[in-house]
Amino acid sequence: MKLRRSERMVVISNYLINNPYKLTSLNTFATKYEAAKSSISEDIAIIKKAFEEANIGDIDTLTGASGGVIFTPSISETEARTIVEDLCQRLSESDRILPGGYIYLSDLLSTPKILQNIGRIIANAFKGEKIDAVMTVATKGVPLANAVANILSVPFVIVRRDLKITEGSTVSVNYASASSDRIEKMFLSKRSLKPNSRVLIVDDFLKGGGTITGMISLLTEFDSTLVGVAVFAENAQSEREQMTFKSLLKVSEIDVKNNNVVVEVGNIFDKWKKEREWT
Amino acid sequence: MKLRRSERMVVISNYLINNPYKLTSLNTFATKYEAAKSSISEDIAIIKKAFEEANIGDIDTLTGASGGVIFTPSISETEARTIVEDLCQRLSESDRILPGGYIYLSDLLSTPKILQNIGRIIANAFKGEKIDAVMTVATKGVPLANAVANILSVPFVIVRRDLKITEGSTVSVNYASASSDRIEKMFLSKRSLKPNSRVLIVDDFLKGGGTITGMISLLTEFDSTLVGVAVFAENAQSEREQMTFKSLLKVSEIDVKNNNVVVEVGNIFDKWKKEREWT
Repeated sequence: MKLRRSERMVVISNYLINNPYKLTSLNTFATKYEAAKSSISEDIAIIKKAFEEANIGDIDTLTGASGGVIFTPSISETEARTIVEDLCQRLSESDRILPGGYIYLSDLLSTPKILQNIGRIIANAFKGEKIDAVMTVATKGVPLANAVANILSVPFVIVRRDLKITEGSTVSVNYASASSDRIEKMFLSKRSLKPNSRVLIVDDFLKGGGTITGMISLLTEFDSTLVGVAVFAENAQSEREQMTFKSLLKVSEIDVKNNNVVVEVGNIFDKWKKEREWT
Repeated sequence: MKLRRSERMVVISNYLINNPYKLTSLNTFATKYEAAKSSISEDIAIIKKAFEEANIGDIDTLTGASGGVIFTPSISETEARTIVEDLCQRLSESDRILPGGYIYLSDLLSTPKILQNIGRIIANAFKGEKIDAVMTVATKGVPLANAVANILSVPFVIVRRDLKITEGSTVSVNYASASSDRIEKMFLSKRSLKPNSRVLIVDDFLKGGGTITGMISLLTEFDSTLVGVAVFAENAQSEREQMTFKSLLKVSEIDVKNNNVVVEVGNIFDKWKKEREWT
């Protein structure tokens, strides 16, 4: 397909956006769009500059025989803060409080734009880390893990609380469920995670931390390594064991009687704070 | 932010790709990138041509005070066929057969690139229809519904087979589960679907059709309308009631004894066939 330079840049931009973290050789573009490699190289330079100025992400060029370009999506602190502050407001709506002190989140976690933004923020917080898979527990965590995996271009892995015949052989571990004060089981299909994977765990709501601890012990069963834990919201009131995690939102108060929820930004912004202090 | 024309085109392309089905006024871009509306108009014309030539999608321009541009993602028949034929091969791998004649699909339905492609093909098959939400049943259908909803820019709605306290008030219906020969219940949170919605139902595997029929009866409870049904794979062997649906894949034979699966492309390509006959 032969295109004019401006059209070619639009098409290459589209390719890079839809193929994050993937190394593509300049020759691939040169052949596909019937252009000299040097012209493609100039196109990439302009796209790189535009992506940086608009905070879309970074384009890295690797030279040599196995070289090419890689696009790493990014998000600025300002954009991330605007998104999370808007979520704080949405979460503070008084009609979200359910009997028992739970918060209704399903509408937020089923809106594509919100999920995409959450995915960008979480992926950005682990930039530079090698991640082979994103793990979560069914059902609420699935769209979140999907969103993060989309940005990182890696598969996601779904741990289940029940046994399904369509999963084949599974490995199970016990975990302490704080909400039900019981020991329960979680299952992961044997073929869903390769040994020696580096795994990012993602979940919707962190209370006692039992589910996360369960998933971490599953990683051991699969000879895999934990890269980190990211949650959409943490409950600041919950007592829980020591655990390192990043949260987008922190629910600091749920007052069922007065129908009041207090939500603040989570610790995921501490990273940016640190970066500011360093520079 | 002031950008050069070529950079501006890259940034506007990125915006359109990430905001499908959204009407954005030219003034928004003109203000954001400090450019004349006529320049933006020229940028859009070039992007439109590039998107059409590379089969990325259509850009429509609406004139008038409430006008602007809308991007509708698209996929060519050739690209869709290549994707689905590749999936046919993956599904035919003999080690996918599980005891009981089930097929292991989880690895395919948790790979972002595959999901994005499936989403593009299904959304394309319903192009021109007004769709307010995508409905599915937990857990396997969730990533599929999410993928289709991403392209259509609408929320997705998750029907559950169990009751969760985090869902608030729910509406339930009975459905006949062919696989277990029993009447079972499915639940949908009352706040998850607005009345008078036009809904596309998506699921992973169609056997007896009981789950789909159940979801259709839930639509009635929510005063909503069915736009259509799309499934990742249909089992051609299953006896089922008359039902209109589109399938990407058709599993025509599962031979557990000889470890053999026969998979062909589904009826979603009949649409393209018809279009070819017309022209």
